[in-house]
Amino acid sequence: MSQESNADYSEGDLRNTGLALKHDREWDYELDRIVDAVEERDAETVGLQFPEGLKRRGSAVADDLRELLGDDVTVVISGQPCYGACDLDTYLMRRTDVFVHFGHSPMKESDKIIYVPLFSNVEVAPIMEEALAELPGEDVGLVTTAQHMNKFDEMRSWLEERGYTVHTRRGDERLTHEGQVLGCNYASADIDADQVLYVGGGKFHPLGLAMEHPDKKVVIADPVNNAVSVADTEQFMKQRYAAVHKAMDAETWGVVFCTKIGQGRWEVAEEIVEDNDDAYLLTMDEVTPDRLRNFGFDAFVNTGCPRITTDDGPQFHKPMLTPGEYEIAVGNRSLEELEFDTFHGTW
Amino acid sequence: MSQESNADYSEGDLRNTGLALKHDREWDYELDRIVDAVEERDAETVGLQFPEGLKRRGSAVADDLRELLGDDVTVVISGQPCYGACDLDTYLMRRTDVFVHFGHSPMKESDKIIYVPLFSNVEVAPIMEEALAELPGEDVGLVTTAQHMNKFDEMRSWLEERGYTVHTRRGDERLTHEGQVLGCNYASADIDADQVLYVGGGKFHPLGLAMEHPDKKVVIADPVNNAVSVADTEQFMKQRYAAVHKAMDAETWGVVFCTKIGQGRWEVAEEIVEDNDDAYLLTMDEVTPDRLRNFGFDAFVNTGCPRITTDDGPQFHKPMLTPGEYEIAVGNRSLEELEFDTFHGTW
Repeated sequence: MSQESNADYSEGDLRNTGLALKHDREWDYELDRIVDAVEERDAETVGLQFPEGLKRRGSAVADDLRELLGDDVTVVISGQPCYGACDLDTYLMRRTDVFVHFGHSPMKESDKIIYVPLFSNVEVAPIMEEALAELPGEDVGLVTTAQHMNKFDEMRSWLEERGYTVHTRRGDERLTHEGQVLGCNYASADIDADQVLYVGGGKFHPLGLAMEHPDKKVVIADPVNNAVSVADTEQFMKQRYAAVHKAMDAETWGVVFCTKIGQGRWEVAEEIVEDNDDAYLLTMDEVTPDRLRNFGFDAFVNTGCPRITTDDGPQFHKPMLTPGEYEIAVGNRSLEELEFDTFHGTW
Repeated sequence: MSQESNADYSEGDLRNTGLALKHDREWDYELDRIVDAVEERDAETVGLQFPEGLKRRGSAVADDLRELLGDDVTVVISGQPCYGACDLDTYLMRRTDVFVHFGHSPMKESDKIIYVPLFSNVEVAPIMEEALAELPGEDVGLVTTAQHMNKFDEMRSWLEERGYTVHTRRGDERLTHEGQVLGCNYASADIDADQVLYVGGGKFHPLGLAMEHPDKKVVIADPVNNAVSVADTEQFMKQRYAAVHKAMDAETWGVVFCTKIGQGRWEVAEEIVEDNDDAYLLTMDEVTPDRLRNFGFDAFVNTGCPRITTDDGPQFHKPMLTPGEYEIAVGNRSLEELEFDTFHGTW
């Protein structure tokens, strides 16, 4: 009766972003910073939240903390899924004196939360060397993820030493660092270059970047899986157009408002429902095929994480659209206006 | 890429309790009571929560309410899974002026919540007639679920007319009605009879009843699926013993504290972790195989809904035990003390 994971996950899968590494790796969990916070706040409870790829290390981190903190402090690990700094376990956060969120950089400063970003120590130069053949011009944009941000200056210098003019910017307040991208935010790639080099694990981020910036060539230098490629969004875009076309026949719509702290767009969801008598507001935290299958709607709009819509879309039993795609499907906008859905700001 | 539900669910499955009916059925959603509450409280928002088998009707109920309430009231449907009155969508409840929970009887009275139990109108006498052959004695206990509670007096009279002495009782404060059972509470069957007649849909409830009362014969008269049977817990019990035996080798334990409002047993979870250095506290709302697979523990203890442990147990990648079974696995109690895990009280 035992079951295996059932889904066919796509290349852009959230679980393939380099946090679950194939090679052994010692992360710096910054235990001293946690211990300081516990002592400073006289904390009795400490909550730990890890992204999916690092949950396996949870017990070892808890062991180390228990040894440092003693028996008077209760350490609790979040068992909720976690896919980003937008995705804090607010239940655990509100019920612990110190709440530590591992694996992501801060989306919003808070006294209550300690963000431990977990920088990768993987070398980036060798795979950047291999990527050069894909970067013919003089101008290049440079982006990476929170995990490799510790090497961002090294990446930039390395490119400059090879004659490139490197274009970088900090996105908006959703992002902590210059050159940082999130799965839902590529404002750091709004730069004056036709090609962008992404240095980091997995294809999840660069595929989003390429969808958000279809005019740019996005080169992927992946030091985790040791592979160079050029982001190819064709499969994704075909799926998006197919979903929009299918949804054009929908008579009833389920409009998902995501209750995760950093993924809520209430006004967007409410506006759709106010303008469409055949649209119904649904609230949930995890937006999964199983949860939506029980409802009898012809199509869905997801106002939460856009990557669930674009990357997991084909796994839903009915068309699942972004708010922008919904406007196309109901005829308020033209198909030419189809674009990637992004999140800006915090909460 | 589309995926179907992947699990092989057992007979005791929560999704097979008669709420998802094979025949057409008009439920009474008690819209007048909801409208009254909205007007009384000058509500601007109404939250609706349906159990899994009734989510499909959500849009029709929302339509009817919108027509009765007008455009000034926003109707929101919970998309969270819901498996009982213990399982309120507290996020939606706290953010709506009136919160309606369909399909279960009240577990705890609250001004904020309207419980709409949704009584079944299916005839019970024909299937009770068929069940008589399995009830040879003079004394019989009688239990049913919230859905068939409207016919409880009829069931009792029907049995009495046929010469039975009918034993019933109200359980504890977790239960609303005399003779009512929940998946996690069979206190209403603590009666002076060796046989108990369960009249209701599905095998989920009577299997729990038979596990809780292994000395009693539990006869199932299922008017929804039109079937009579005797509850057979052998398969379940074999699985429980197997899980306990496997877990005896565990070096590390994940101890799940369920954050659902009616499923939390903090003291039970905390006590285990305090006494065992190799046990780690995990908090989550939905306790699923996918969520636990990411952790590297050898075995798990579930202090939340016992039916996830007993009914879904084999679907987890590692042994999943109730708190009582854990005590056996670590040697604090003997295997003879293995018993069904039940919930009492409210929250």
